[in-house]
Amino acid sequence: MRGVVLHDPGDIRVEERADPSIIEPADAVIRVTAACVCGSDLWPYRGVEQADHQPMGHEYVGVVEEIGPDVRTIEVGDFVVGSFVTSDNTCEICRAGYQSHCVRREFVAQTIGTQAERARIPLADGTLVATPGRPHPELVPSLLAASDVLGTGWFAAVAAEVGPGRTVAVVGDGAVGLMGVLAARQLGAERIIAMSRHADRQALAREYGATDIVEERGDAGVARIRELTGGLGAHSVIEAVGTQESTMQAVRATRPGGHVGYVGVNHDVTIPGIDLFFSGVHLHGGPAPVRRFLPELIRLIWDRTIDPGKVFDLTLPLDRAADAYRAMDERRAVKVLLRP
Amino acid sequence: MRGVVLHDPGDIRVEERADPSIIEPADAVIRVTAACVCGSDLWPYRGVEQADHQPMGHEYVGVVEEIGPDVRTIEVGDFVVGSFVTSDNTCEICRAGYQSHCVRREFVAQTIGTQAERARIPLADGTLVATPGRPHPELVPSLLAASDVLGTGWFAAVAAEVGPGRTVAVVGDGAVGLMGVLAARQLGAERIIAMSRHADRQALAREYGATDIVEERGDAGVARIRELTGGLGAHSVIEAVGTQESTMQAVRATRPGGHVGYVGVNHDVTIPGIDLFFSGVHLHGGPAPVRRFLPELIRLIWDRTIDPGKVFDLTLPLDRAADAYRAMDERRAVKVLLRP
Repeated sequence: MRGVVLHDPGDIRVEERADPSIIEPADAVIRVTAACVCGSDLWPYRGVEQADHQPMGHEYVGVVEEIGPDVRTIEVGDFVVGSFVTSDNTCEICRAGYQSHCVRREFVAQTIGTQAERARIPLADGTLVATPGRPHPELVPSLLAASDVLGTGWFAAVAAEVGPGRTVAVVGDGAVGLMGVLAARQLGAERIIAMSRHADRQALAREYGATDIVEERGDAGVARIRELTGGLGAHSVIEAVGTQESTMQAVRATRPGGHVGYVGVNHDVTIPGIDLFFSGVHLHGGPAPVRRFLPELIRLIWDRTIDPGKVFDLTLPLDRAADAYRAMDERRAVKVLLRP
Repeated sequence: MRGVVLHDPGDIRVEERADPSIIEPADAVIRVTAACVCGSDLWPYRGVEQADHQPMGHEYVGVVEEIGPDVRTIEVGDFVVGSFVTSDNTCEICRAGYQSHCVRREFVAQTIGTQAERARIPLADGTLVATPGRPHPELVPSLLAASDVLGTGWFAAVAAEVGPGRTVAVVGDGAVGLMGVLAARQLGAERIIAMSRHADRQALAREYGATDIVEERGDAGVARIRELTGGLGAHSVIEAVGTQESTMQAVRATRPGGHVGYVGVNHDVTIPGIDLFFSGVHLHGGPAPVRRFLPELIRLIWDRTIDPGKVFDLTLPLDRAADAYRAMDERRAVKVLLRP
């Protein structure tokens, strides 16, 4: 089958890879209907993380082609959405809602690579969720978003304890930040401040529910959030970047007793203990337990209550994956959908 | 009046200080019945924090001698317990339960110094809580504990989301850690693991409700906690030290989705973002909003449900404050009560 491989930083190729097959009895093999490029794929692409002939991709929707003998809830022919971390959904950690830390987890990005025609998904029962039927093609991008960016933005909002009456600030205007805005709206936030300096992303943020836009960053951004919140800071702040500046911006934009939900994959971030101590904020985040939210997110998409698929502003065939990476690296696209 | 002053690191003196008086209309002046030395007083005593002729002490109980014209709820003659941070208890931050971050707060340690015969307490209505009557003398140490160490240990347990069915680990066997054990017991924890290598503190921890003792520290301590919790880590971990080692020990001893409540005043702690990210824990803490808990803590003490005063294992007259500091610095005493 055809699949995307990162040979070296910057060197994305679509080439023949071995066809996946059932290895463990809990596996399923799916034909990938749609995959995409994640902001986190840019870290190895840019050489910030090491990669050597790495199969790429961890977001996926598709049709089940084959199941192992232990698979009970997923059937051949099902249209499924899965998370970027596999989970048995039965261990104590999963039952507490932290499937991304399942005791049997695997990171799809490290072992599987779903920017491909087909993919083996371990722990199929605990990882995949079937949609109520074969989706209308226009729903596919939204279902694909649920697989990572929507689930991640949603988790960030839940981790930041977004809710009615709350003022929420969102640091980061990438796909996850925009999904954080959407989630905050759905969760009933009163005021949603998107931090963005790009007109196109500001427009999408407003469409998803942002009530205010702040263009300033760092200290100036924090000062602006305080100004908008009676000097106190936001109740809830979503951190969807993962740099030192964005992390401390999120902490400092939050009022004492408020909540930071952080999901930007951290790179070279160190949090000064004393600053955190005197901030009085709650801090929670990490790799999102997307599986926890999938049934609800699929329902909201199926009912056309939300339209997260708009976050894909470019669609390319799988063979043009190199163009997809370039477009995202150069920030010409928010997020690129790939069609095998 | 007589009061404790830290001239230079290690140089504690009891000397004449100006008598306090009403300055602001919301002030009260109290005659201090009992004060004590806090673990955090040792930072300037040891020269880790700067101090130059600093009046010392921020924990206190006493009798109100004088009130300003704006004071409404506190009367002359009341026996009162106050927090180490003053608060108006009416601002939005206070109403959310974060009185230690009140928009009008003052740190008692920095401006007042309660290791003295009398003290001026700003924002008396919002800072002080009167007991139901004049307390029996044997209750005084427990009421004094409520002023900081009990309130702080209690907050740590609440921040760590301690509750029925939970396994709690407590990092630190100082007074605050021991109060964390007491709080965890009161809040219904199923299992309480105290991390301590001192026989006397282990005994007090067991008396306050610890079900297990772990003597190992650092990596070995984390491994032991995991061993005791089916490989997963504790649901709730109380951090009551404030060093790099203790902070990371707390994070790593917590299961994904679990909660760290940290109250040890941080010194030179830096938290690697990537470790925190992949831990999946909740982190909350900082200067405890003791005022939030005072009414409940006073009730539990008054009813003799809890006996936090046992944490004072040495009582000295105010004039021997230098001996009190030495005993705590050399770890010969857990906590010293001073009687003016």
